[in-house]
Amino acid sequence: MSLPSKYTWENFQRSYTEFPSINLAIDLSRSSLNAAHLQSMEPLLQKAFRAMAELEKGAIANPDEKRMVGHYWLRNPALAPNVSIRNEITETLAAIKKFAAQVHSGEIKGASGPFKRLLIIGIGGSALGPQFVASALGHARRDRMKVHFFDNTDPDGMDKALAEIGNDPGATLTVVISKSGGTKETRNGMLEARAAYTKAGLSFEKHAVAITGVNSELDRYAQNPAWLARFPMWDWVGGRTSETSAVGLLPALLQGIDIDQLLAGAAACDELTRVADYQKNPSAQLALAWHKAVNGIGAKDMVILPYKDRLELFSRYLQQLVMESIGKEKDLDGKVVNQGIAVYGNKGSTDQHAYIQQLRDGLNNFFATFIEVRKDREGSSMEVEPSTTSGDYLLGFLLGTREALTQNNRESITLTIDEVSPFSIGVLIALYERAVGFYATLVNINAYHQPGVEAGKKAAGAVLELQLQLLKYLRDHAGEKFKITQLATALNAAEQTETIFRLCEHLSANQRLSKTSGVNPFDSQYQLKN
Amino acid sequence: MSLPSKYTWENFQRSYTEFPSINLAIDLSRSSLNAAHLQSMEPLLQKAFRAMAELEKGAIANPDEKRMVGHYWLRNPALAPNVSIRNEITETLAAIKKFAAQVHSGEIKGASGPFKRLLIIGIGGSALGPQFVASALGHARRDRMKVHFFDNTDPDGMDKALAEIGNDPGATLTVVISKSGGTKETRNGMLEARAAYTKAGLSFEKHAVAITGVNSELDRYAQNPAWLARFPMWDWVGGRTSETSAVGLLPALLQGIDIDQLLAGAAACDELTRVADYQKNPSAQLALAWHKAVNGIGAKDMVILPYKDRLELFSRYLQQLVMESIGKEKDLDGKVVNQGIAVYGNKGSTDQHAYIQQLRDGLNNFFATFIEVRKDREGSSMEVEPSTTSGDYLLGFLLGTREALTQNNRESITLTIDEVSPFSIGVLIALYERAVGFYATLVNINAYHQPGVEAGKKAAGAVLELQLQLLKYLRDHAGEKFKITQLATALNAAEQTETIFRLCEHLSANQRLSKTSGVNPFDSQYQLKN
Repeated sequence: MSLPSKYTWENFQRSYTEFPSINLAIDLSRSSLNAAHLQSMEPLLQKAFRAMAELEKGAIANPDEKRMVGHYWLRNPALAPNVSIRNEITETLAAIKKFAAQVHSGEIKGASGPFKRLLIIGIGGSALGPQFVASALGHARRDRMKVHFFDNTDPDGMDKALAEIGNDPGATLTVVISKSGGTKETRNGMLEARAAYTKAGLSFEKHAVAITGVNSELDRYAQNPAWLARFPMWDWVGGRTSETSAVGLLPALLQGIDIDQLLAGAAACDELTRVADYQKNPSAQLALAWHKAVNGIGAKDMVILPYKDRLELFSRYLQQLVMESIGKEKDLDGKVVNQGIAVYGNKGSTDQHAYIQQLRDGLNNFFATFIEVRKDREGSSMEVEPSTTSGDYLLGFLLGTREALTQNNRESITLTIDEVSPFSIGVLIALYERAVGFYATLVNINAYHQPGVEAGKKAAGAVLELQLQLLKYLRDHAGEKFKITQLATALNAAEQTETIFRLCEHLSANQRLSKTSGVNPFDSQYQLKN
Repeated sequence: MSLPSKYTWENFQRSYTEFPSINLAIDLSRSSLNAAHLQSMEPLLQKAFRAMAELEKGAIANPDEKRMVGHYWLRNPALAPNVSIRNEITETLAAIKKFAAQVHSGEIKGASGPFKRLLIIGIGGSALGPQFVASALGHARRDRMKVHFFDNTDPDGMDKALAEIGNDPGATLTVVISKSGGTKETRNGMLEARAAYTKAGLSFEKHAVAITGVNSELDRYAQNPAWLARFPMWDWVGGRTSETSAVGLLPALLQGIDIDQLLAGAAACDELTRVADYQKNPSAQLALAWHKAVNGIGAKDMVILPYKDRLELFSRYLQQLVMESIGKEKDLDGKVVNQGIAVYGNKGSTDQHAYIQQLRDGLNNFFATFIEVRKDREGSSMEVEPSTTSGDYLLGFLLGTREALTQNNRESITLTIDEVSPFSIGVLIALYERAVGFYATLVNINAYHQPGVEAGKKAAGAVLELQLQLLKYLRDHAGEKFKITQLATALNAAEQTETIFRLCEHLSANQRLSKTSGVNPFDSQYQLKN
């Protein structure tokens, strides 16, 4: 292995920083970040530090939605800008702990006894954090409750989760999570779950908990009849940064995860990432390395490669955190910039056998982030060869793959954590939250809104509205068959002819319309099913 | 919703093709593929058809490795180039069916009775297919066996899977899959699984099956003492196209999946994709649409968005199939081209709440593939609003998100299947296998080798070798402490000083070395643990 001279021990020592208070190390020796870039970015970096300080003090950091951005307060309520917010945080945390203790003790229980299973209904920011944490920190033998998810409006997906729960709804606690309280996928999941309880002869409300904004649609729904409990979400917590709010903490604690350690890890990382000095600030290091790698314009994809099965969902969690925060049309001055960084990855060394071929030999359109976990497992390891364990192989493949990428000029960052624990997961969450915030300032965008998601929802609403009109027309003309183009004319929706075609095909496939096939796919006729 | 005039019903009809024999439709109306590009590609496309015909006849389609590429024969043994291969395919399929029937009947059983669980040990091509199919077609209430995976050399990941299996190793059948028979991750998993059986007082070989090349390291290992069964892999089946070989079929059948339907779907799709006419060939349509979208050079990422939970792992399966096949340094003429297409995605409408913000508003560096599944679920659906089901919402979000992307000039392809079934999964697998093969010819590369993965393995081997030297040195100097630089000098490995540092830190974290911390991370001293 011959390497360019920059990969020397001297350079490594300069580029590798340990952060002992959070058991994290960052190695930028194989990143393209260099002194010249650092120097040129220093004014922007100082601006990012100031913006973050303002945000923590309660500035309207999300100007579009006129909201404060307060996820850092969740880990250190003393920072909250006023007593009322401070109290809400501490009171909610106390309420979460009290509720979980009552569930674990059996004081609060289901129709068939103590709760043994948890069904979490949420999507996006209300599912990815809980899924990541449940998978990273869960343990079949130790978990207090087994966790299931509805994270979509797929009927079959819900049936699949319900089949896993099996004949156990009376011992299943359902947690419905929607910040706005109006998310349709979550509402649908809630209604389907309620129907499953009802079918089993059980009262849904006696097995349900809501996490939502006070006085939201869901919050009101959960009061009459009253559910087991309701926990608040606040407008100053964004969905993708809500893991340390009730959204993440309640499910984690119910599962049996030490949320104090999770919060402590996040708080300790936040503390470090307040330091206005690149050398001492791990999130600033990440943000700058990203900026250099992607040329400040998303020119490369971010490939996340944790060498640890438990971190497999981390890239999916980061996909949301990074892409929803950074992927913006306009900058803060209103200029069209079409920013973003695409994120993907699963885990090493598994991905070595999937797509490292392309990373090493093919398109150089990415930078990799290797995540090394020093502790292999609980207890000691057998040897698979003399003096060699499975964990030695895992590290060997990490270093080997990284080396192979370096040889071909593919850059990478290496993060090292000591172990996968509630503390280290808290650190990783806080580390990337802050890095994304810094990066947003470096490229002059608002990291805390998501204006682009409304368009899809609106268009979906129009499709569902069109379906109502279609079904009404077919009901009004029961017994008659229509071609697609006839329906489009009748509904005065010629521009939506394809949509009508897809609606008719979907309704037919689900036994709600009868279809008489024509000579070609567009000639078929549809009528209401008797 | 105002759309460019090209999104008309007329254009849709021209761009939407139904393939009734495989219950598939492809809609290219929102792709940038156009008549001019089709015309310019026609000679290359005809070349791709000829290359595929040659490959199916047994040409050495993988010239580097001097191998035939025969996964199509697996679905239609009559096509195999000689009787010996034909017989091997049919005999192996018969042996798989016989073995699975014996397992299901309890004739072949474990120490504690009939096998109820399946532990599949494999990685890359020996895991992604089985994982995708198990997740797409499994059902908690109907599965004959519950499926677990070791798909990495992560000790903790294995412990996690073993904890799920719990006190049930005597009813767990372990299937070890390695084409080469020498994959270290899989070998390590096998040894760790064997140790778990041994610890439970059980004979591993009486609970184990191997799928591997005849006379490979694993094949020989599985003969003495003899495992329950061995099934062959052939050098003419690549790992990433092995789902319809024993690799995919044995696990699927053991789980209770109808593999005849899986094979029938693949065979029916293969039949269609032999037609040398773009209009009638769904894989050719995909390959051409990709080519236009990525400008033949991977200029855009492929985002896979199936609107169905069961297809969630499809993008991960495709990540391997596409990136390992297309991500190549050199073309067939030896010219450096650094080809590739990056693939990512999970499922809709979940991903709408994760990163569609970036797709719609941010970087336009991707094309999306929407996968619509017409059938919502088994049985009928409740209404979540009048005349509206959860499945209507799922389709509404698909069409709405697609619309929102189209409005902002983000292109997409839409695939439609009737349902998720063994047949349709066979279709999807075959559809993309062939599309990747065609695309490779369009860009003049070899889709069937993976020369870039060796470098990482070699470098990993060097790391493990260095660790052996390090441990030997520390054993030879037991009781003495050394700094990293001292060890590097002693081992004559100055260029590997960082590696030695990481090895020492890893060994210390796992209680194999003692570490005495220094004033900085590089000053610590290490010695063998007593």
